[in-house]
Amino acid sequence: MRIGIIGAGSIGLLFSWYLSEKHEVTLYTRTVHQADLINRKGVTLVKETEEVRKLPAKPMDEWVGGDDLTIITVKQYQLQEVLFQIEDKLDEAGSLLFLQNGMGHLKLIEKLQSSSIYVGSIEHGAVRESAARVRHNGAGAIRAAVFKGSLVRLEELANNAPEDFSIQVETDYYEILVRKLVVNAVINPLTAVFQVQNGILLANPFYRKIAMSLLEETLCVLETADKEKHYRDVVNVCEKTASNYSSMYADLSQGRRTEIDAILGFLIEEAEKRGVHCPYICNYYHMIKGKEFQGEVVT
Amino acid sequence: MRIGIIGAGSIGLLFSWYLSEKHEVTLYTRTVHQADLINRKGVTLVKETEEVRKLPAKPMDEWVGGDDLTIITVKQYQLQEVLFQIEDKLDEAGSLLFLQNGMGHLKLIEKLQSSSIYVGSIEHGAVRESAARVRHNGAGAIRAAVFKGSLVRLEELANNAPEDFSIQVETDYYEILVRKLVVNAVINPLTAVFQVQNGILLANPFYRKIAMSLLEETLCVLETADKEKHYRDVVNVCEKTASNYSSMYADLSQGRRTEIDAILGFLIEEAEKRGVHCPYICNYYHMIKGKEFQGEVVT
Repeated sequence: MRIGIIGAGSIGLLFSWYLSEKHEVTLYTRTVHQADLINRKGVTLVKETEEVRKLPAKPMDEWVGGDDLTIITVKQYQLQEVLFQIEDKLDEAGSLLFLQNGMGHLKLIEKLQSSSIYVGSIEHGAVRESAARVRHNGAGAIRAAVFKGSLVRLEELANNAPEDFSIQVETDYYEILVRKLVVNAVINPLTAVFQVQNGILLANPFYRKIAMSLLEETLCVLETADKEKHYRDVVNVCEKTASNYSSMYADLSQGRRTEIDAILGFLIEEAEKRGVHCPYICNYYHMIKGKEFQGEVVT
Repeated sequence: MRIGIIGAGSIGLLFSWYLSEKHEVTLYTRTVHQADLINRKGVTLVKETEEVRKLPAKPMDEWVGGDDLTIITVKQYQLQEVLFQIEDKLDEAGSLLFLQNGMGHLKLIEKLQSSSIYVGSIEHGAVRESAARVRHNGAGAIRAAVFKGSLVRLEELANNAPEDFSIQVETDYYEILVRKLVVNAVINPLTAVFQVQNGILLANPFYRKIAMSLLEETLCVLETADKEKHYRDVVNVCEKTASNYSSMYADLSQGRRTEIDAILGFLIEEAEKRGVHCPYICNYYHMIKGKEFQGEVVT
């Protein structure tokens, strides 16, 4: 099918490379420069070896819709701007798949007039090494579900996914996002603040204690029934990615904006709605905001 | 008068240098090596200029008491060992002045059989540059009060203090220690964790928010009436020492043990006694402990 991919960060490059094997993919970039580069050089995926795939790229300003499925891979804090650019032409945009972290984007996309909207989460580890080059660090799952409308395009995507880039269609979109949110809420801020690899959150008994307090509070805010499941999720990710640095650690250490608003910021809003006190969440939210602020002051 | 000073860290060196001007000072060191060095070279104080003062030093193993006043300058976590060494000869030890941070040492010293015990706090900034050399960074106050017994030796000390090293005799020892504890509880852990100078705790709006939450909780645990006074204390110290790095920041960055047990550890014990919930205090206690643990793992 015809797939448009909006956003050419690590996830956008990864999806465009893998999906272009069986689909007609167009990648939409923020800058003309990046689109030019990809049109000339293709997208390089680095795994055990390197492989280049040619695919067309266009700057986002040239987006007119017309694809069967559009996958939106930008960060949550860039989403509003993207929606503003596409909302007039949503009739032509076919189905939409949103891959943001957190859950704050749900309130933005529930207003959209598209017939079919999907949301998903990604467990792959990917780092953008340059404007047209992505390193695929760790294979993981991609889970997606219908947020509204028909399953057709999502099933077509899943049925034609490459073997090493499989897409699992789930029935409960809320469950997908909550599980990822809980893992992100604990691992991302703590590794970024402690400046450690994911595995250290379990290996250091004091950090582990903090991680459990933050987890407990997160589950309390989300009014989660099955706490054990989320505990296992966090432990599994820490163990499987023990020597990796989290995306928030990487963002902060490279002076980029983090996704803290989509993660702990969202939880603070939820806590306020429900009148729940959440000191650990507030503390780490302000710490990451403070570190972003220090970075801006320094640079 | 004859003054014994136990502990030759920054505070021990600072006191021995200043007090040896008008008193007969003996400095007691942990190691034979440091005592030898000081006996040979004297103690150097670095301020605008450098000045050496000769004074006798002895390793702690040779301590037999006999001074009119003994000033104990070791860290709180070293105090138990020192008390174990001196408790048999306390009859000969004259009056005692304890200069530890926090308040955890009160339960150790209240059992002592000495006739006169004083406690105090120090606002001077001092860094030990080598075994016999101390840099006096910022002049501040020294406050001391009777913990038990007679005021005589403390007044004698205060009346003969050098002009640039004045000692204020106060009436309420609890007040002295609480005020220092509150300032330490907020500034030390936060600057160490955020890795910033003291002034940044006010200048960064997110860090300031955290500082206020930690202050609020500390005052709640200590059941303090005059919150405004402690707030002003914290703000004053941050402003006056804006470009300084706190002692806990320095301890952590140099792989030394911090005084976190004497400060937040003490507050956690108090909170438990009183059934008060203190998530910020617990969080920063575990963060510092976790950082100490990481330091040990790495080195």
